[in-house]
Amino acid sequence: MNVNGIGYRTVWLEGASVFFIEQNLLPFEFVIKESSTYIESCHAIRSMMVRGAGAIGAIAGFAMAQAVLASSENNFLEFISHAKLEIEATRPTARNLFYATEKVFNAAIKSREAAVIAAQEIANRDAADSQRIGQFGNELIREGMNIETHCNAGWLAFVDYGTALSPIYLAHEEGKKIFVYADETRPRSQGARLTAWELNQAGVPHAIIPDNAGAWLMSLGKIDMVIVGADRIAANGDTANKIGTLEKAIAAKEYGIPFYVAAPTSTFDAACPDGSSIPIEERSEDEVLYMDGVNSAGNREKILVCSPGSHAINPSFDVTPARFISGIITEKGIIKPDQQSIHQLLSHNKFI
Amino acid sequence: MNVNGIGYRTVWLEGASVFFIEQNLLPFEFVIKESSTYIESCHAIRSMMVRGAGAIGAIAGFAMAQAVLASSENNFLEFISHAKLEIEATRPTARNLFYATEKVFNAAIKSREAAVIAAQEIANRDAADSQRIGQFGNELIREGMNIETHCNAGWLAFVDYGTALSPIYLAHEEGKKIFVYADETRPRSQGARLTAWELNQAGVPHAIIPDNAGAWLMSLGKIDMVIVGADRIAANGDTANKIGTLEKAIAAKEYGIPFYVAAPTSTFDAACPDGSSIPIEERSEDEVLYMDGVNSAGNREKILVCSPGSHAINPSFDVTPARFISGIITEKGIIKPDQQSIHQLLSHNKFI
Repeated sequence: MNVNGIGYRTVWLEGASVFFIEQNLLPFEFVIKESSTYIESCHAIRSMMVRGAGAIGAIAGFAMAQAVLASSENNFLEFISHAKLEIEATRPTARNLFYATEKVFNAAIKSREAAVIAAQEIANRDAADSQRIGQFGNELIREGMNIETHCNAGWLAFVDYGTALSPIYLAHEEGKKIFVYADETRPRSQGARLTAWELNQAGVPHAIIPDNAGAWLMSLGKIDMVIVGADRIAANGDTANKIGTLEKAIAAKEYGIPFYVAAPTSTFDAACPDGSSIPIEERSEDEVLYMDGVNSAGNREKILVCSPGSHAINPSFDVTPARFISGIITEKGIIKPDQQSIHQLLSHNKFI
Repeated sequence: MNVNGIGYRTVWLEGASVFFIEQNLLPFEFVIKESSTYIESCHAIRSMMVRGAGAIGAIAGFAMAQAVLASSENNFLEFISHAKLEIEATRPTARNLFYATEKVFNAAIKSREAAVIAAQEIANRDAADSQRIGQFGNELIREGMNIETHCNAGWLAFVDYGTALSPIYLAHEEGKKIFVYADETRPRSQGARLTAWELNQAGVPHAIIPDNAGAWLMSLGKIDMVIVGADRIAANGDTANKIGTLEKAIAAKEYGIPFYVAAPTSTFDAACPDGSSIPIEERSEDEVLYMDGVNSAGNREKILVCSPGSHAINPSFDVTPARFISGIITEKGIIKPDQQSIHQLLSHNKFI
C-alpha cells in the first residue's frame, strides 16, 4: 500500500536484510528499519515492531532464511535448528510463525536458494490472499455505504492489503463513495491509531469514533455494514477477535446490520469445536491505566489516565458466537459461519 | 460521603461562602475550594469545577443566596435580578439550575434568611432523594452480586450519595459482598476517573474495565446487574444517558441481565414524548483525539492519542429505548419504564 505516495509492504527481504515498518512508532512517525541478522529480526517480532498475524508469519520466514544464509557448511543443521527454536520463541502463540519457520527450514535442506524462495513465497501468498479477500468483500460494498470496523485488520497486520480493510481499499480505488467509522478500540487504540493512519494514507474518508458510539450510530441508521478481522475462528464459526467485537456484533444484529468477518483460511482452527475452547489472553492492566501519545512539545509520553489506586481488568479478545455473523470473507470466497461450510472450506485447503 | 475518612458533600454553604470539591483536579488531587462571591461561584460552574445535575443545582442555589446576602437595600431587586441571569447563563441547559435560582430568588422577596434557608433546602433535598434512591435500589442487590456501571452517577454528580452508585454504597455499608465493574467511559473517562475514585474512597471492591469488555464479561456470566444514571427520561421511559449506555443495555438484554436506570423524579421530562425528541449534544472531537492525565514526573499533561490528521465524531449521549430497561429507581420507588407508570409518578411529584 502507499505511504506518502510510495508503495510499501509491511516487511520484505532484500539480499540478506529484512526491511520493515517500525509499527511502535506509528501513527506519529513512519520509519523503515533494516535488520541484517536473524537475531535482529527476532527482536523486531518480540518488541512488536512488526505485529499482526500475517506480518509476523512473513518476518519469521525471512528470519529463518537469514539464519540459513548466515550458516556455514560445517555446522549447518545445528545452526539453523537452533535459530528455528529461537525464532519460534519470540511470539509462541502466533500460529503463522511456526508454519513459516517450518516451511523455510524444510526448503533449506534442499538448498539455500530454496529457503529464500520459500520465505518470499510465504510473504507473497499472504499478500495475494489479502488481495483476494478484498475482491470478494468488495462485492458486498455498494455505493454510498457507511462501514464500521473495529481494531486494525488492515495491511499493517499483514504483508499488504489486510483483511477487513482490503475490501474497503478496493471499493475506494474503484471510485465507490464510502465512509468508514473506525472504532477507537481501547485499550490499545489500534483503530484510532493504525486503522485511522492507514485510511488517511489511502485517502479513504473516515472518522474515529469512541467504542461507546457504535450502537448509537447503528440505531440512527448511520452504519450499513460492519467488517472486522479475526484472530481465530472455531470449527462452528465462533470467532475470536479484539475485545469489543462482540458488542458490535450484538448491536448490529439488533438493528439488522450485516456483520462480516474477513480472514484467510489459515485463521480457521478445526481443532477448536466452538468458541468456548478458544483461550483468551488476559493482558496487563497498565494498558488500561496508562496511555501513550505525543505531548505538546512533540515528544512521546506515557500518562496515567485512571484513578490512582484502582485496578483494571484487560481481556484482550472476546468470542463472537456464529449466530451474530452474517458471513466470513476468505480468499476462497464468502462462506456461512457454520460447521458444514467451514469443513468444506478446510477440506480443500492447500495452505497448510 | 467519606474522603480519606472525613465526610464531605460535593458543595455546601457556610455563612456567605460556598465550599466545593474542585472536580477538575480529580482523581489526581482532592482539593476543597472556597468561593466568597456569587461571581466566583458562577465561575466554578462554568469551568466545571462543580459538575453533575444535582451538584450544579445546589451550587446555583447557593450562588443565588450569596447574591442576596451581598445586595444592599437601595438596589436590592435590580442587583439580585441581574445576578440571577448571570448564574443561569453559566450552563444554560442544566434544568436543576433554573429551578434553584427561581426558588431562592422567590424566597429572597420575603427575607434574606428565607433565601439562605431555601438554598440549603435544595441541597438537602438533593442529598435526601439520592439517599432514598439508594434504599430502593439496595433491595435489588443480593449478596455476592457483580454490578456493572457506566460513566459517573455517583455522589460527585450530586450533593451526596449519587444515583446509580447510591444503592451500591448502601449495600456495601450493610456488609453485602459485592463487586463493581466500572466502565472506563471514553472519551471523558468519568468511569475510570470519578467512579473508580469514589469506589476506592468508599472501599467498595471494584475494577475499571475498557468499554469494550462489557458484553464479553456478560457472556461469561460475570455480571449480574447493570445500574446507570440518566440525563433525561422521556414520558415513555426512553432514557438519554452517557454515550455507550445503549450498547450495555442491548448486551444486557441479550444475556438476560437486569438493566436499571437510577434517577430522581426531576430527571423525567413529560414534555418529551419519546427518545427521538431528546436533543443529543455533539461535543468537540478533541475529547477523543487528546487525553489528559499525569506524567511520570507527576504533572498533568494532555497528549495526542490518535493518528494525526484524522477526525473524530463525539456524540456525548445516546438514547436507550425503554424496552431495554428493567426498571427506573427513583426516590419514590422503582417504576416500570412505561407511559402509565411515569405519568403516575409525575402527577404525584411535589419536587418542581
